[in-house]
Amino acid sequence: MEIEAAKMIGAGLATLGMIGAGLGVGQVWGNYFTAIARNPAAKDEIGANIWIGFAVTEAIAIYALVVALLVLFG
Amino acid sequence: MEIEAAKMIGAGLATLGMIGAGLGVGQVWGNYFTAIARNPAAKDEIGANIWIGFAVTEAIAIYALVVALLVLFG
Amino acid sequence: MEIEAAKMIGAGLATLGMIGAGLGVGQVWGNYFTAIARNPAAKDEIGANIWIGFAVTEAIAIYALVVALLVLFG
Amino acid sequence: MEIEAAKMIGAGLATLGMIGAGLGVGQVWGNYFTAIARNPAAKDEIGANIWIGFAVTEAIAIYALVVALLVLFG
Amino acid sequence: MEIEAAKMIGAGLATLGMIGAGLGVGQVWGNYFTAIARNPAAKDEIGANIWIGFAVTEAIAIYALVVALLVLFG
Repeated sequence: MEIEAAKMIGAGLATLGMIGAGLGVGQVWGNYFTAIARNPAAKDEIGANIWIGFAVTEAIAIYALVVALLVLFG
Repeated sequence: MEIEAAKMIGAGLATLGMIGAGLGVGQVWGNYFTAIARNPAAKDEIGANIWIGFAVTEAIAIYALVVALLVLFG
Repeated sequence: MEIEAAKMIGAGLATLGMIGAGLGVGQVWGNYFTAIARNPAAKDEIGANIWIGFAVTEAIAIYALVVALLVLFG
Repeated sequence: MEIEAAKMIGAGLATLGMIGAGLGVGQVWGNYFTAIARNPAAKDEIGANIWIGFAVTEAIAIYALVVALLVLFG
Repeated sequence: MEIEAAKMIGAGLATLGMIGAGLGVGQVWGNYFTAIARNPAAKDEIGANIWIGFAVTEAIAIYALVVALLVLFG
C-alpha cells in the first residue's frame, strides 16, 4: 500500500477515537441537567466544575482529531 | 491500493467517529426533557446551557465530518 | 483495489456513523414520552424543543448519509 | 477486488448502520408503554407523537437500507 | 506494506484506545454532579478524589495518544 493511500485510511480510523468522547460529553451535560432539576442549589455547588468536566472530556475528542490531522498532513 | 480507492474507504471509516456524538446529543436532549418534567423551574436554571451542552456534543460529529471531507476532497 | 470497488465498501462503511444517531433519536423521543407521563404540563414547557432536539440528533445520521452518497456518486 | 465482489461486502457493511435504529425504535416504544402504564392519561397527551417518534427513528434504518440497495443495484 | 504506510494505519488504530476513556471520563463527572445534587455534603466527602478519579481515567486516553505519536514519530 502506498503511503498516500495509507494516510487516507489512517485518518479515517483515527476518528474512531472520538466515539467515546461524544458519548461522554453527552453524559456530562445530561447528568448536569438532571442534577439541577433534582436540586437547584446544585448549580452553585457544581459551579465551574461543569466547564472543567466538559473540557477534559472534549479534550479526548481533540486528541483523536489531532492524530487524524497529523496522519493526513503531518 | 490506489489513493483514489483509499479515499473512499477512509471517508467511510471517518463517519464512525459520529457514533458517539449521535448518542451523546440524544442523551443531552433526553435528560433535558426529563429534567423539565421533574422540576419545571429547571428550565430557567438550565437556560442557555442546553444550547451549549448540545453544541459542544454536536461539535464532535462535525470533527468527524470534517475529517471525512478532508479525506475525500482534501 | 479499483476505485469502483472501493466506493462500494466505503459507502457501506459510512452507514456505520448512523448507529449513534439511531439510538440517540430513540432516546430523545423515549424520554419525551416519559416526561409527559410524569408531568403532563411538561408538554407545554418542552414545546418546540422536542422538534429541535430530534432534528439536531437526526442531523448526525444525515451527515453519515451525505458522506455515503458522496462516496458513491461524488 | 472485483467490483461485483465489493458490492456484496459493501451491502453487508451497510446494514450495520441499522444497529442503532433497531435499538432506538425499541426504546421509543418501550418508553411509550412505560409512560402509559405510569399515567394512562398520557396516551391522549402523547397522541400522534408516538407515530412521529417511531417514524423518524425507523427512518434512520431506511437510510442504511437505501445505501445497501444503492450499493447492490445502484 | 511499506513501513511508512503501516505507521499511518497503526496511528489511526491506536486512537481506538481512547473510546473507553472518553466514555469513562464522562461517567466520572456525570456521576459527580448527580452525587452533589443528591447530597451536597458529598462535595466535601469526595474532595480531591474527583481530581484523582478524573486524572487516572484521562490517563488512559493519554496512553493511547502517546502510542499513536510513538507510532507516527517514534
